Amino acid sequence: MPRPQLHRETLVEQGLKLFYARGFNAVGINEILEATGAPKGSFYHHFETKGEFGLAVLQLYYDLHMEFMRRYLKPESMTPKQDIEAYFQAIIRKFKRNGFTQGCMLGNFTVELADADPVSRERLDAMFEGWAAALAEGIARARQLGEIRNRTDALKLSIFVLSGWEGALLIARARRSAAPLDAFLTTIFNQVLV
Amino acid sequence: MPRPQLHRETLVEQGLKLFYARGFNAVGINEILEATGAPKGSFYHHFETKGEFGLAVLQLYYDLHMEFMRRYLKPESMTPKQDIEAYFQAIIRKFKRNGFTQGCMLGNFTVELADADPVSRERLDAMFEGWAAALAEGIARARQLGEIRNRTDALKLSIFVLSGWEGALLIARARRSAAPLDAFLTTIFNQVLV
Repeated sequence: MPRPQLHRETLVEQGLKLFYARGFNAVGINEILEATGAPKGSFYHHFETKGEFGLAVLQLYYDLHMEFMRRYLKPESMTPKQDIEAYFQAIIRKFKRNGFTQGCMLGNFTVELADADPVSRERLDAMFEGWAAALAEGIARARQLGEIRNRTDALKLSIFVLSGWEGALLIARARRSAAPLDAFLTTIFNQVLV
Repeated sequence: MPRPQLHRETLVEQGLKLFYARGFNAVGINEILEATGAPKGSFYHHFETKGEFGLAVLQLYYDLHMEFMRRYLKPESMTPKQDIEAYFQAIIRKFKRNGFTQGCMLGNFTVELADADPVSRERLDAMFEGWAAALAEGIARARQLGEIRNRTDALKLSIFVLSGWEGALLIARARRSAAPLDAFLTTIFNQVLV
């Protein structure tokens, strides 16, 4: 009796675990298949290439992260600046629980794929844009409410904050130390978003 | 007649080109050998593993970068803040010439190796520390001369600046846009190092 065809989602979820833990280039399709117990045909029924699969995994990561972010940043909030800080603190807690590993998959995929694969790069570009726009809404709201007086354009500020965040996560990962994340929180919330 | 044994440096220089262009995991030892025309024995005469070779490549990258940095940040300078800005602007020019690719090899190796290989992670940790210390000297000097009044600890500030830098480079690479780097320069030099 043929094995039931493994659902696309199961493959993508497994890909998320493995790519997030070890990177896109270090994990082969065979490993994904072994981890899910799926036959090769099942994979190629859903995805033409590893690259296409990688994009589906990245999309799942992004969707889950944006959902997580929306739990902290709400359009009607009366404390948007605190919400932004709580959002970053929540990711830091997760990151610490994971022993300062894995970081951010947008950053990881940028390193591994942006130069080599134009389709991935465009997708990453759009995701960074979407993420920055969501943060910029929070910043704009905080400015409306007088929590932030800094008059730099909200999207520009938001890109600066996310750059600082991505880099702090990267250096914290190399150092297995929370110091870069603490420096990020202190400087961003006491000197930039003021 | 046996081929002359290829010099260690030639291998490491070739590794730097290939790993920087395409990443550590995407480039195999055989490709390095083909690019240099070296026989396999020559490689294993110098390096026991690909990981050991990767560390030599990373060290060369770091040494070259620190040499480059010292051309901008000089201990006796009377304009340390301007020198720091000129240093970042010079890397941005290089990065633009390379079509917004490659980024920073410390960041790239962190993504690919920090979680999987403790020896690489420790080396990256030490390199980020050395780099931050060099920048902190410039910041401390700028403070002595009254160019910077921000009283945050110089090393903390320096880690914040380098985080912002690493992340801006990463996002600029995904977006093929100088906007994150411009946001970095504007905010760091007008709001943080002030």
